[in-house]
Amino acid sequence: MKTLIHNIGQLLTLNPAADGLGESIGMAVLIQDERIVWIGETQEVDSGRADVVIDARGGLVTPGLIDSHTHAIFAGNRANEFEMRLQGKSYLEIAASGGGILKTVEATRQASAEELYALTRKRLLRMLSYGVTTVEVKSGYGLDFETERKCLRVLRQLQSDLPMTIVPTYMGAHDIPPEFKGRTDDYVDLLCQEYIPAVAAEGLAVFCDVFCEQGYFDVAQSRRILEAARQHGLHLKVHAEEFCELGGAELAGELRATSADHLLHIGEKGIAALRAGGAVATLLPGTAFYLRLEQYAPASALIAAGVPVALATDFNPGSCAIDNLQLIMSLACLQMNMTLSDVLKGVTRHAAKAVGLEADRGYLAVGSRADLVLWDALDYQELLYYVGRNPVRGVVVSGTYFSREQLEAQSLSETTP
Amino acid sequence: MKTLIHNIGQLLTLNPAADGLGESIGMAVLIQDERIVWIGETQEVDSGRADVVIDARGGLVTPGLIDSHTHAIFAGNRANEFEMRLQGKSYLEIAASGGGILKTVEATRQASAEELYALTRKRLLRMLSYGVTTVEVKSGYGLDFETERKCLRVLRQLQSDLPMTIVPTYMGAHDIPPEFKGRTDDYVDLLCQEYIPAVAAEGLAVFCDVFCEQGYFDVAQSRRILEAARQHGLHLKVHAEEFCELGGAELAGELRATSADHLLHIGEKGIAALRAGGAVATLLPGTAFYLRLEQYAPASALIAAGVPVALATDFNPGSCAIDNLQLIMSLACLQMNMTLSDVLKGVTRHAAKAVGLEADRGYLAVGSRADLVLWDALDYQELLYYVGRNPVRGVVVSGTYFSREQLEAQSLSETTP
Repeated sequence: MKTLIHNIGQLLTLNPAADGLGESIGMAVLIQDERIVWIGETQEVDSGRADVVIDARGGLVTPGLIDSHTHAIFAGNRANEFEMRLQGKSYLEIAASGGGILKTVEATRQASAEELYALTRKRLLRMLSYGVTTVEVKSGYGLDFETERKCLRVLRQLQSDLPMTIVPTYMGAHDIPPEFKGRTDDYVDLLCQEYIPAVAAEGLAVFCDVFCEQGYFDVAQSRRILEAARQHGLHLKVHAEEFCELGGAELAGELRATSADHLLHIGEKGIAALRAGGAVATLLPGTAFYLRLEQYAPASALIAAGVPVALATDFNPGSCAIDNLQLIMSLACLQMNMTLSDVLKGVTRHAAKAVGLEADRGYLAVGSRADLVLWDALDYQELLYYVGRNPVRGVVVSGTYFSREQLEAQSLSETTP
Repeated sequence: MKTLIHNIGQLLTLNPAADGLGESIGMAVLIQDERIVWIGETQEVDSGRADVVIDARGGLVTPGLIDSHTHAIFAGNRANEFEMRLQGKSYLEIAASGGGILKTVEATRQASAEELYALTRKRLLRMLSYGVTTVEVKSGYGLDFETERKCLRVLRQLQSDLPMTIVPTYMGAHDIPPEFKGRTDDYVDLLCQEYIPAVAAEGLAVFCDVFCEQGYFDVAQSRRILEAARQHGLHLKVHAEEFCELGGAELAGELRATSADHLLHIGEKGIAALRAGGAVATLLPGTAFYLRLEQYAPASALIAAGVPVALATDFNPGSCAIDNLQLIMSLACLQMNMTLSDVLKGVTRHAAKAVGLEADRGYLAVGSRADLVLWDALDYQELLYYVGRNPVRGVVVSGTYFSREQLEAQSLSETTP
């Protein structure tokens, strides 16, 4: 099937082979099945060549956005903790009142696969309504093997049912399971010897991630987990330097992890290690904003050092109930002082690299995947100038067009079935 | 015509006569034409009594939101200034490059009434899609009388065409017109002797507002303008203490203005004056966020002093291109540490008072106006817990229901006609 998008006012290809953002005006894009087969000027095109013709109405078209760090599969919510945090309650006080991550673990363990499927499906379709056509999703709210496998299998089912690309990450090392309190090394043994091999054998994940942080998994434990993962063919991600400078970024660089994420407290050594190891730095400003921290990751220093910087939501039910990548883009400008150009790269080609898919997405060219966003904006400056507004007019994902209204209608009703 | 909303999981009436937020479960609301005629339990109701039946699907229902401070009528945009500001360019540098408020004044003067109508209509419908059923809109991007009158007449036409309530404010004193540079007193004479009387005689505005700020209108000039406005039957609003503590809040209190707005630098005297004068303090955290200021208005001190605090967008093309009142609610929590309860009052009953309409809106009761929001959330905590997500399922405005999809479809296409 051939689909033509014509009357594109401003096209940003984000093609690394082009200058800047690969900007041009008056363009058209021809798609065959899931691939772009032609890009040229609107006036050159014969719309009779296409089965489906989409009018971009003189607006901006960009590659589909990529959210390269989410924890979008979980049951329940922790809405009551939001007010507790505003009142200044500490993490320990919230946990003592039955809240915190273990509340989500409990709800996720109890939820059926069908429930998790329905909840996650609506979340992913909502993300698609923001223009996100590829999304990484981590397990990590089961911790026990059965629940982690249940979540990863639900993601596999969603991948076969939804048009967007779902990149599954196994994050059994998201926290110490309550059953292993005080016995982290025993849990690491189990992860390395049983869980990781089983996840890899069933082909349930592309990445393995670890929470390398004081009180969670230290650098030595993280190294064991990541090395086991690599041995079983998984690619690597690291939650690093979120609370303090522990050395997770250096580990990520040394092990040639695909990305190191958070990085609020990364120092010069960590930055050098990421650069040397070719890792992407994935920054998650929504979390600092949501937790009302004073500190954000040092975006400018990372960019100045030549590290590719991706931006992602970190969407999760505790520290960042923000699923809107557009808001993250605004925060990157307003709270981290990133330029529009760096922000756009951060949610397209750098984010593609952060999920290992830079070969055919995160940019638009003949042969690349037909994931595009049609915006209700004349140029990319408008996209960031209006804050808090969703300017998506429609999305092409895997070559198929969905209007904003279709996506909105499907993404409602999470909590009121 | 009778409309029934039933199967409401959680109803917040915000009725001042009730405790807290007027919270109850399992409710139904019966509407006749534009008014609520009955509120009771879902199980008591006979749906045969209604011409239209709306299923709230077990979700949350609240009063329609009220955005009590916007500058939503203007032509053009200043998207290019967003990047300049990120690069650290000063206001003067931006103005020197042809930007700033005078760029919007120029575009608004040149725009036809039809263009302004189309632009503003889409903005207002987009606000309705966020749950805003009453919106105050200020003139002030014409400055010359003909353009100001053109804008206010467009608002009058929009009020007769759209279901939402539009509260028009004359703000000829938004800035010194370029034609009066260095002759502010001459412009104030003209405002008091000609423009205000003419606006009032034509019934084009309910409120008169003035930018009482260093470099704009000082306290004596602001007093003259506001007294002239009052004499001609207009109610009063004051942009006060945004850049420094000049005395605008004291003036607002003394003249019994309906509201004083911004208030980043308000001190104890100003707070006491607002309280004594019965004025609402309208806080606009979007502007501080958008301009990347360190300082926010002292919400807690105002609330502790017993001043009603409203929250509004300040939507305008320069200092706050945020039209989404829900994002303002998030900022009120995260950046001003307001409680969920104060935030909800700030966009309903306190905002109603800020536009002089507290008699019949901003709360739900028999006899109040049928402006309601149906949310895709089980309770009000969820509303603020998820940041950056629009959880509106549908809106009832003046007794008529609009689904989210209808509103979305109408509010697209501002820039790509």
